[in-house]
Amino acid sequence: MLGGDAAPVAVAGGVARALAADSDLRVAAVGPVDVAERSLAAAGAAADRLEIVAASQRIEMGEDPARAIRAKRDATVRVAVRLVRDGAADACVSVGPTGAAMAAALFTLGRLAGVTRPALAVVIPARNGPVVLLDAGAGVHAGPDLLAQFALAGAALAQTRLHVAHPRVGLLSVGTEPGKGDEVRKEAFGVLTAALDGQPAEFVGNVEGADVALGERADVIVTDGFTGNVLIKGMEGMLTLAISLVRDAGAPDRTLDDLLATALGPLHPDTLGGGVLLGVDGVVVIGHGAAGADAVASCIRVASAAVREGLLPRLAGSLDEFVRRRRAAAGYTAPVTGSDGGKGTQQ
Amino acid sequence: MLGGDAAPVAVAGGVARALAADSDLRVAAVGPVDVAERSLAAAGAAADRLEIVAASQRIEMGEDPARAIRAKRDATVRVAVRLVRDGAADACVSVGPTGAAMAAALFTLGRLAGVTRPALAVVIPARNGPVVLLDAGAGVHAGPDLLAQFALAGAALAQTRLHVAHPRVGLLSVGTEPGKGDEVRKEAFGVLTAALDGQPAEFVGNVEGADVALGERADVIVTDGFTGNVLIKGMEGMLTLAISLVRDAGAPDRTLDDLLATALGPLHPDTLGGGVLLGVDGVVVIGHGAAGADAVASCIRVASAAVREGLLPRLAGSLDEFVRRRRAAAGYTAPVTGSDGGKGTQQ
Repeated sequence: MLGGDAAPVAVAGGVARALAADSDLRVAAVGPVDVAERSLAAAGAAADRLEIVAASQRIEMGEDPARAIRAKRDATVRVAVRLVRDGAADACVSVGPTGAAMAAALFTLGRLAGVTRPALAVVIPARNGPVVLLDAGAGVHAGPDLLAQFALAGAALAQTRLHVAHPRVGLLSVGTEPGKGDEVRKEAFGVLTAALDGQPAEFVGNVEGADVALGERADVIVTDGFTGNVLIKGMEGMLTLAISLVRDAGAPDRTLDDLLATALGPLHPDTLGGGVLLGVDGVVVIGHGAAGADAVASCIRVASAAVREGLLPRLAGSLDEFVRRRRAAAGYTAPVTGSDGGKGTQQ
Repeated sequence: MLGGDAAPVAVAGGVARALAADSDLRVAAVGPVDVAERSLAAAGAAADRLEIVAASQRIEMGEDPARAIRAKRDATVRVAVRLVRDGAADACVSVGPTGAAMAAALFTLGRLAGVTRPALAVVIPARNGPVVLLDAGAGVHAGPDLLAQFALAGAALAQTRLHVAHPRVGLLSVGTEPGKGDEVRKEAFGVLTAALDGQPAEFVGNVEGADVALGERADVIVTDGFTGNVLIKGMEGMLTLAISLVRDAGAPDRTLDDLLATALGPLHPDTLGGGVLLGVDGVVVIGHGAAGADAVASCIRVASAAVREGLLPRLAGSLDEFVRRRRAAAGYTAPVTGSDGGKGTQQ
């Protein structure tokens, strides 16, 4: 209830809309009880499927995320991921700072076996069908092995959310020929080929920035968090520019700017649908800090869909295979039986 | 006459349009004489301000650029930059492979004093006025010192082409706060601050992907060639998507897709205006391989404008100051008198 630029109003409005749209949904709203009660009542949220869980602290944008999460034991996002860890909730949604949500998830939920670092995955409504892009900014760097983990995670999301049985996975680079890109992409080419071999997914090689919006070449596009974050924000900026040009051109019969905003909803700042933090041992959805009520409702939809579609078991399964091969390549032979010790132990 | 996907027709058409639009322009078309004569005549190019310079070889997309430029002494792009070096032309335009044009420029023209590696600069027609983005893909990596060179080069382009006396220069990162980004951006922050101090430009700190299309925060945005290339192609893809959505919505009174294409012309694949290769000792403009006649004409306009506006002397001047400070910081005291030995000597 304290996350994002427009808290608590936008969060309360999003909860109300999500509850109204999905009669099987139950929401635990985490925040100061009086603030939550007042704002949720004002938003008209269905009280019978709503619970308020007390938490008093807020993480600010300027704070160091890891330090803030450690220091603020009663931060809303930390209490929320604790509910997931304890089985009291199936998923957590945050529109607070991305770094804070990621730190809370790592600290409390831990990583899935085989995961070095989680990635934020967003689904872009591309021209030829949706595209999963990751990492959209959970980290900044990514070496070849991490990009391979992202490929498996993105494929699991495409399989469950997009119902693509054999997703095509592309490596974002500056040209489609194999050899194009920096040293990381050159090396990643072989690592991704090996990691996806035998998986229900296909490595289609290098793809380019335009493929994220076009969707012709790949269903899943992997890159480091720096590039992914710059790219997705650049696409958002271009969409804002296009909408303002359409608006300047006058109002035709159908309001074209509304159409653009709807069709491209998940990318639009006003309605941004939220990214899924892939790689932590729980479903965590992170929305835009500028999220309005529609965007918060969309984040909740994304979270409940991930739970219902079995994203986590699917991802854990493909990572098991990845870990088995990585261990075999390193000379280990012990079977993989679950989490790799990255599991969080703090509360 | 042999560069790009639609050679020689698109090149000949672009030459014809550029000559028709600018009565002070003279063009030397470089390629096989029979091919050039036939295609330029078919395009109706004004023969009185047109000269054909013979060259027989073409660099293909798959070739290693540096090797191809060395091996193919009669490649069109190599002959074209030679005309610039010899003073027979003021500028060179290529819609062949970017790497080949860059290799030819480096090999034959050499670098300006103070330049480690050139960058490709494009002008984006952002919502609040044009934005210079570089590097759009001449290289892949860029450390802090190279980013500072890009900042000076981009500022010179904004001063001459955009007539912004004191351009605001931003460093592309994943958040606007100073500590945001990877190690390169963190270190570059201080290096850019120092490099722009005392120059007719202002370092405004970190900017984000959206700022390239919005133009509110900066007139010049610098980044490495990998990120810049992915970003600009991602924006192109988003524009293509937006145009197709507008088209799908039916045809209003004013054809909105035409409007979008015109307003955003320089970013649109059909009309991409071409990037200026900043840092080499000559004016070299590189267009999209998919360039049609309009795009080729636009590249020629960009090249002639750069010559008329004095881009090169402006850039050399600000680099002199940069080199002087860098040398002072390293303990040298000798004055800077011109090129630094990066000058090309091969023909």
